[in-house]
Amino acid sequence: MTSPLLIDQSPAWKALLKHKKTLSNTALKTLFEQNPQRGQTFKASAAGLYFDYSKNLLTDETLKLLNELADSAQLPAAIEELFSGADVNNTEQRPALHTALRALDSNTDTANEGEFTSSLAQMRNTMNAFADRLRQGDERGTSGKAFRDVINLGIGGSDLGPRMIVAAFPELQAEGLRSHFAANVDSDVLKGILSQCQPETTLFLISSKSFSTLETLSNAGLARQWLSNAGFDNTQITCHFAAMTSQIEKATTWGVKPERIFPMDEGVGGRFSLWSSIGLPIAIALGSDAFSQLLDGASAMDKHFRNADFSENLPVLHGLLSIWSINFNGHHSRAVLPYIHRLGELPNYLQQLTMESLGKRVTKTGQPCTYATGPVIWGSEGTNGQHSCHQLLLQGIGAVPVDFVATTKAHCEPLQHQYLVANCFAQSRALMLGKSYEQALEETRSLGLSEDEAAQLAMHKAIPGNRVSNTLLLEEFNPHTLGALLAFYEHSVYVQSVIWQINAFDQWAVELGKTMSTTIFEVLEKTASKHELDSSSQALINHIQASHPTP
Amino acid sequence: MTSPLLIDQSPAWKALLKHKKTLSNTALKTLFEQNPQRGQTFKASAAGLYFDYSKNLLTDETLKLLNELADSAQLPAAIEELFSGADVNNTEQRPALHTALRALDSNTDTANEGEFTSSLAQMRNTMNAFADRLRQGDERGTSGKAFRDVINLGIGGSDLGPRMIVAAFPELQAEGLRSHFAANVDSDVLKGILSQCQPETTLFLISSKSFSTLETLSNAGLARQWLSNAGFDNTQITCHFAAMTSQIEKATTWGVKPERIFPMDEGVGGRFSLWSSIGLPIAIALGSDAFSQLLDGASAMDKHFRNADFSENLPVLHGLLSIWSINFNGHHSRAVLPYIHRLGELPNYLQQLTMESLGKRVTKTGQPCTYATGPVIWGSEGTNGQHSCHQLLLQGIGAVPVDFVATTKAHCEPLQHQYLVANCFAQSRALMLGKSYEQALEETRSLGLSEDEAAQLAMHKAIPGNRVSNTLLLEEFNPHTLGALLAFYEHSVYVQSVIWQINAFDQWAVELGKTMSTTIFEVLEKTASKHELDSSSQALINHIQASHPTP
Repeated sequence: MTSPLLIDQSPAWKALLKHKKTLSNTALKTLFEQNPQRGQTFKASAAGLYFDYSKNLLTDETLKLLNELADSAQLPAAIEELFSGADVNNTEQRPALHTALRALDSNTDTANEGEFTSSLAQMRNTMNAFADRLRQGDERGTSGKAFRDVINLGIGGSDLGPRMIVAAFPELQAEGLRSHFAANVDSDVLKGILSQCQPETTLFLISSKSFSTLETLSNAGLARQWLSNAGFDNTQITCHFAAMTSQIEKATTWGVKPERIFPMDEGVGGRFSLWSSIGLPIAIALGSDAFSQLLDGASAMDKHFRNADFSENLPVLHGLLSIWSINFNGHHSRAVLPYIHRLGELPNYLQQLTMESLGKRVTKTGQPCTYATGPVIWGSEGTNGQHSCHQLLLQGIGAVPVDFVATTKAHCEPLQHQYLVANCFAQSRALMLGKSYEQALEETRSLGLSEDEAAQLAMHKAIPGNRVSNTLLLEEFNPHTLGALLAFYEHSVYVQSVIWQINAFDQWAVELGKTMSTTIFEVLEKTASKHELDSSSQALINHIQASHPTP
Repeated sequence: MTSPLLIDQSPAWKALLKHKKTLSNTALKTLFEQNPQRGQTFKASAAGLYFDYSKNLLTDETLKLLNELADSAQLPAAIEELFSGADVNNTEQRPALHTALRALDSNTDTANEGEFTSSLAQMRNTMNAFADRLRQGDERGTSGKAFRDVINLGIGGSDLGPRMIVAAFPELQAEGLRSHFAANVDSDVLKGILSQCQPETTLFLISSKSFSTLETLSNAGLARQWLSNAGFDNTQITCHFAAMTSQIEKATTWGVKPERIFPMDEGVGGRFSLWSSIGLPIAIALGSDAFSQLLDGASAMDKHFRNADFSENLPVLHGLLSIWSINFNGHHSRAVLPYIHRLGELPNYLQQLTMESLGKRVTKTGQPCTYATGPVIWGSEGTNGQHSCHQLLLQGIGAVPVDFVATTKAHCEPLQHQYLVANCFAQSRALMLGKSYEQALEETRSLGLSEDEAAQLAMHKAIPGNRVSNTLLLEEFNPHTLGALLAFYEHSVYVQSVIWQINAFDQWAVELGKTMSTTIFEVLEKTASKHELDSSSQALINHIQASHPTP
């Protein structure tokens, strides 16, 4: 691979810098006043999603230049590479096959037709059949009783997606069957879950691509111990485990029955893996039909992303506007605020998807990036944040762009849905308009204060406005639109990675912490001869050891 | 109030700017190499907390200059003002009485001795007695059965603190009594809780200082409806509610029995209110003894904050280092990563405490701040983030300072605690040391790659290091140390507000969204004549109305 020019050397980038200057004295509010059609103009729809991006500080010219930037970065070709199974994950010499996982049900041409598709189809059928048998009470534990509790042992990509999706559709959960998720190595997590379960009717899913994740294997060990404490022998214990992994042999050696191992492909990255066998807890909790709808929704967004003109392409627009926000408007983080309780886990999920994919500092060819890349993603379900962090969104010194997410058709009681929607739209409007000093002064003058006091209080009540947001509406809240929403964010992330010329599919930094934790664990446990540590780590270890000396 | 010079005009601020330049080529790693005692030097302890701040980019000179800054901002006097009940919340002409709430049990002199203290003592006794009767099964519903489910209806400050603390100590929960929290106006929240409860044995706590919070009253209405649907008449319904509020009359009118209304003082702000009657769900779930220990832990930190020399004063050090991070090192957000599952809600709690207190843009006297103020706070329980956002912490373009929180004495199984601690210390070490290109190259060369390939891959594996963090250890995990930890953060926030000359205790921005949501609600419901809205809000409303026209 030759080293291309960095993107910030492109004419399009420079034109955007210049264009930003021309907009620096323009308020978003003014753009709305100038064009009464703005709200109808800067929106797009696809796959059950309505996307309003009119509350970004942009004009037609901005979009034109962002499109030129996309062309400079060869975005159209990069999109084809993703779908055609090219090694877009160049540092690991792998394709990224998450879209191929969704193409299966809907007859799109897949990346690696033939072997991959047929093994994928087989995996999907086996997994769905297992899930449906389990839901019907036909998969049983060692004593012949149907499983009542399914506990997913997995962390990161083996946890966040399934956890979020299962929580989103409680009404689809099979009667008498409960789903649980244990991620953290902290034993309190699993202990809390096990206190509600019976060994005879509990199934553990060990979800680990490498089958070597510390947290997951630690929890699997605790689970095995719990079954053993209940008097189960090794053969009986085996009846209470299944696994999702690409390391079949390791799983077998650990003691999972081969027919209960659901393989996943090396070409599917952890944070893109809910569409693979890692999605088994979804199929179990919500049924294989719901899982198929989820895949179909994602697939509909895939087709849109691959085929739609950039001017109405939701992931492309969202990705380019994120670049505009970060690189030209100096934003450092983005808040994601779903006004849908069932989607309360979305910000956590997007934290991994975005920050692990885009938290990079060198381009695919190894050149240091000379521009900002991935932002911090944070947020929580609305309206909760209105009583918490929105003070900073509205009156803090630095602007934070927001993605608001809501539903068009009520997902909950109609009146409460109206409250949710009214609050959601009001927040984006408040961020955009703010409250001028003059308006605030009018208010404070009416309070019977002295002119000085009124003027001072008005300074506190004034809100700058001009703060940007997107609003995404799911036309109806169901697995199909949720699948589309997740694929939308995946592709937006890919768009950003292409512009920044980085690899969205590797995560090299993760290794270092693992190595260092092994070292520190050895020092803590005194199982190794003394390692040389920095004096902070050593002082912390000494402090721990002084409090509870290991034998 | 006259307008003092803005803090960035002080000699101390300017000296810090200059000092930062002298450090700009110094790596944290080098500071550790230069002083093998660094880890023992830059630490302090109080009230059951061990605070290691050695992994900040600082020298003795930095601390000296930060102390001068504190003097310029008259921090010592400001601390006295807080404790002596002065109107530190100047824009609302109120004191901030959270420390007085904690002083009661431990004989510190309180702000408003006399009336406030005695009414506080009475409130505390009544509340504790109610909680203990309820735990013993002596508070009963309309049919004479003991309560088994207690559902807190509250949002923001009436939710986050109690929710976090109750989740932290499941082992203290009274047998047969369950605690639930419903915050969001989304009816799915309460619906999900009610599906597990029986009307006869369910008590609702309406927690709202103003007794006019939309979300809380909406949920209280749904609760009343649920009881009514179960055949309860109005008198019977009344037996299933209690309230914590400063609006006694409103609560009575709504239908709460006067003996079940627990008053709170106007001088206690929402985000500082868990120490008041708003903490009732804590006393119910964990017992009044545990609630007292929580208050005592906070009180111990209060005394430390008020009396300890700044050189060993934990909240002062943390607050000043936050200023150093934000204003002199350009950090925009802070991650809080508790390596304790039971404290998984801490980041959410600190989001409100910090962002609502410090998300301000004018000084107390109404001058616009010419420097950055409150940061975005985010995070989640470790080790989970290591499989998610730590990629960005280690290799992202912008540095994010981290607060690591762990326990000295194991709070969970000993082996899993060692894993937690090893991972926690390893992450701060990895952030600090990173991995040099040379180290990475050594690794990639051993993989049998060509020299070009090895060099390129090494660029991807290299980690810059020099990223800063604090480590906080709770000597033992119990209500006392948790109380101390929360007071530590409260006071750090106050320190930052004093340096920035802002009011940490108001939240003027929140009003605007409320007003606008009322307008939009009226348009949605068509109950008002048409309001003039921006075209984005109008288009979104049209879209919603087209999908489900209101009658």
